[in-house]
Amino acid sequence: MSQATNTFVEQNQNRFLEELKDFLRIPSISTLPEHKPDVQKAAQFVADSLKRAGIENVELIPTAGNPLVYGEWLHAPGKPTVLCYGHYDVQPPDPLELWKTPPFEPSVRDGNIYARGSADDKGQMYMHIKAVEALKAVNGTLPINLKFLVEGEEEVGGSSIAKYVAENPAKLKADAALVSDTALYAEGLPTLCIGLRGLVYMEVEATGPARDLHSGLYGGAAPNAVFGLIELLSKCKDANGVIQVPGMYDDVAPPAAAEKESWQRLPFSEADFLKNEVGSLALTGEPGYSVLERVWARPTLEVHGIAGGFTGAGAKTVIPAKAVAKVSIRLVPNQDPDKIVPAFRNFLADNAPAGIRIELRVLSAGPAIMVDPDNSIIQTAARAFSEMLGKPTVFTRSGGSIPVVGDFANHLGIPSVLMGFGLPDDGLHSPNEKYRLDNYYQGIMTIAHFFEELGAAKK
Amino acid sequence: MSQATNTFVEQNQNRFLEELKDFLRIPSISTLPEHKPDVQKAAQFVADSLKRAGIENVELIPTAGNPLVYGEWLHAPGKPTVLCYGHYDVQPPDPLELWKTPPFEPSVRDGNIYARGSADDKGQMYMHIKAVEALKAVNGTLPINLKFLVEGEEEVGGSSIAKYVAENPAKLKADAALVSDTALYAEGLPTLCIGLRGLVYMEVEATGPARDLHSGLYGGAAPNAVFGLIELLSKCKDANGVIQVPGMYDDVAPPAAAEKESWQRLPFSEADFLKNEVGSLALTGEPGYSVLERVWARPTLEVHGIAGGFTGAGAKTVIPAKAVAKVSIRLVPNQDPDKIVPAFRNFLADNAPAGIRIELRVLSAGPAIMVDPDNSIIQTAARAFSEMLGKPTVFTRSGGSIPVVGDFANHLGIPSVLMGFGLPDDGLHSPNEKYRLDNYYQGIMTIAHFFEELGAAKK
Repeated sequence: MSQATNTFVEQNQNRFLEELKDFLRIPSISTLPEHKPDVQKAAQFVADSLKRAGIENVELIPTAGNPLVYGEWLHAPGKPTVLCYGHYDVQPPDPLELWKTPPFEPSVRDGNIYARGSADDKGQMYMHIKAVEALKAVNGTLPINLKFLVEGEEEVGGSSIAKYVAENPAKLKADAALVSDTALYAEGLPTLCIGLRGLVYMEVEATGPARDLHSGLYGGAAPNAVFGLIELLSKCKDANGVIQVPGMYDDVAPPAAAEKESWQRLPFSEADFLKNEVGSLALTGEPGYSVLERVWARPTLEVHGIAGGFTGAGAKTVIPAKAVAKVSIRLVPNQDPDKIVPAFRNFLADNAPAGIRIELRVLSAGPAIMVDPDNSIIQTAARAFSEMLGKPTVFTRSGGSIPVVGDFANHLGIPSVLMGFGLPDDGLHSPNEKYRLDNYYQGIMTIAHFFEELGAAKK
Repeated sequence: MSQATNTFVEQNQNRFLEELKDFLRIPSISTLPEHKPDVQKAAQFVADSLKRAGIENVELIPTAGNPLVYGEWLHAPGKPTVLCYGHYDVQPPDPLELWKTPPFEPSVRDGNIYARGSADDKGQMYMHIKAVEALKAVNGTLPINLKFLVEGEEEVGGSSIAKYVAENPAKLKADAALVSDTALYAEGLPTLCIGLRGLVYMEVEATGPARDLHSGLYGGAAPNAVFGLIELLSKCKDANGVIQVPGMYDDVAPPAAAEKESWQRLPFSEADFLKNEVGSLALTGEPGYSVLERVWARPTLEVHGIAGGFTGAGAKTVIPAKAVAKVSIRLVPNQDPDKIVPAFRNFLADNAPAGIRIELRVLSAGPAIMVDPDNSIIQTAARAFSEMLGKPTVFTRSGGSIPVVGDFANHLGIPSVLMGFGLPDDGLHSPNEKYRLDNYYQGIMTIAHFFEELGAAKK
């Protein structure tokens, strides 16, 4: 562990924070077309930051969607090459009224920085750049070869990076990818994520009558698009959350006994999880599986939003003609999106209520990913992490999805080091998203240390 | 039938149309608070029109909600008194993009006037005023005593008129009310409506987690407010539309055999109804009941709108914390809202999914209403109607609700003549609402004739 690098980080904390604030002020919401210029601005911010840190050949790569930012530093012959990945786009901030301070005016309170994207993923991605800057400032050089590939469509399930990775394996050739878009399992506990669920994101639209009808004059005879959609979606899961789509569980690979056992040793309190993270009356989910199994290793189906009919203040007595819902299915190892999507489509067709037309639109689809914890670079990362935080590194999974990890595995043949410094209560995708400042600074030091260790090990 | 009155109406058609257009240009949407000034403007328009027609003691009566407009003409001693009711407020026009011409820019096409409120109820209510004007212009006096009470909260289920009727029975004393807020059963077929369904209008709100959660990190363990609401509402009806709330059908009074038989003689084609009015893949509803029975004489439950979670363009992977739906139950004779609401509330509590908090808010509640077709004023109305249109008057019901008819019955002890001139395809509450101009002019003549006949009959 290089004390000089750590000292540099400590001495530059204020500047590193102010720079991150500038980054967080850009509302680069990839889901909303009106924020297209902000998305572009965030890409340029990343490119400029890479150049200032000493990364070379920095370019904005135009795509059908939002630009990719590429850069490289390749002056460590015989040393490993790490491909640093992150995303500069963020989720929409709504519901706005629940934010204590505005989502794009970063605010520091109680040792946290509050802003949309602070943890997911601007704050984490920026650590990679600052680690490079620190190493270069202290040593005048870098211990390994580095490539950067930063995207702006992660939150929108965009396919530009997948296409680029598939078409440019030589340019992106590396020994491993580094992805900081996950969380420590608990504060101070070094954590490497070795499993991610896949995701199929869809829209389901129901059409009933040709136009909205008066519910007095037609109620009892005309089909209702909102009720039809409700009826159909309610059939997708039973009361326990077990998905009713035939074949859904056929290919599910359960975790190995040793992995399940390691999860039992993690500091997890169901009562704390319910009270401090979820905050509902009760937890839900498949009987016979622990919370961690349900979230990490079981497929789930969620309705993320629904809209249809009259939803203003007061009363309007319509039978709505149309209704639409956003629906996703999370996939676990061995489930194939190309089998799951048709199964869901058939289920909708077979169960559509009388008089209701159903249309299914697939917005994105990607399988689950597992990383081999015995890979030597993963082992080096685990060791660097342990040394930095003073505790053995734990291996966990995440119920979330980072599709690019699959692209790196499939097209570049490399594992991803999922070394994230978020915390479970960061509020990703929620109001008042935050990132712990200690983790930001410690993350920069840990990543620098990981690079040093990789450079010291024989390739 | 007074030829002179009819001639006056014919000679003044253009002016009557232009005046109606002025009325329709006022976007008096009672459901939307931002249209409060327009609602006030519409009330003033009615008051001014009454004064110009020769109605006396016209006043705007302030209420907790929107003003009532009152006026009277009481110079026919020994003759009956009719209380003319209507409403000057309208439904919201959304979805706006489906209107061929803007909802508040009246447009005449193919013998119809297109505008929000053209049939429901501005165009119909205005007929009462023009009938008075015609009779006064031709005869210098009126054949009966008249009172007007016009409200601005009908579309919002407001309670101001109910309160006013309950508190002012002496002022409003009359022999019958006249309400033109219904439709001819078919073009050219004189129709008196003698039954209206009641309505309970509610909001059902579901709360899951304390905040929106990331569906990757929590999906499988955290309850989803949107899915919880979907699950709960889907249990309210079976696939045939039979309401599953215990006790829902206990008090339902079926129509008498003679009434059911008379419905079978009405010109009704289920194929036309499906194709030209509803426009869906199929009709729905309780097996064993005809379409007219289902719509007129059976309770129904509808979800008018639902909102929750992310519904913008693209993808957001949240587990929503909140979701809300607008739900109504239509009631038929003998059903008591004071029994139905608690039954529904209990049903929601008993069936709330695990982890989901449910809140029920009742926005309005009123029972079904029946009018006795043998009442002498109803008989006079039927005769005047038959003479004007040249066919026997049919007695029908409506599946809609006009709560004030119940207030007139309960507090004033009078029947309501439900003499409406709309047509089944007028598109009430829908885009491109229209009112047939022939019906507008014929309605004015028929109402004038009804008043003349009432004046000629001995009281």
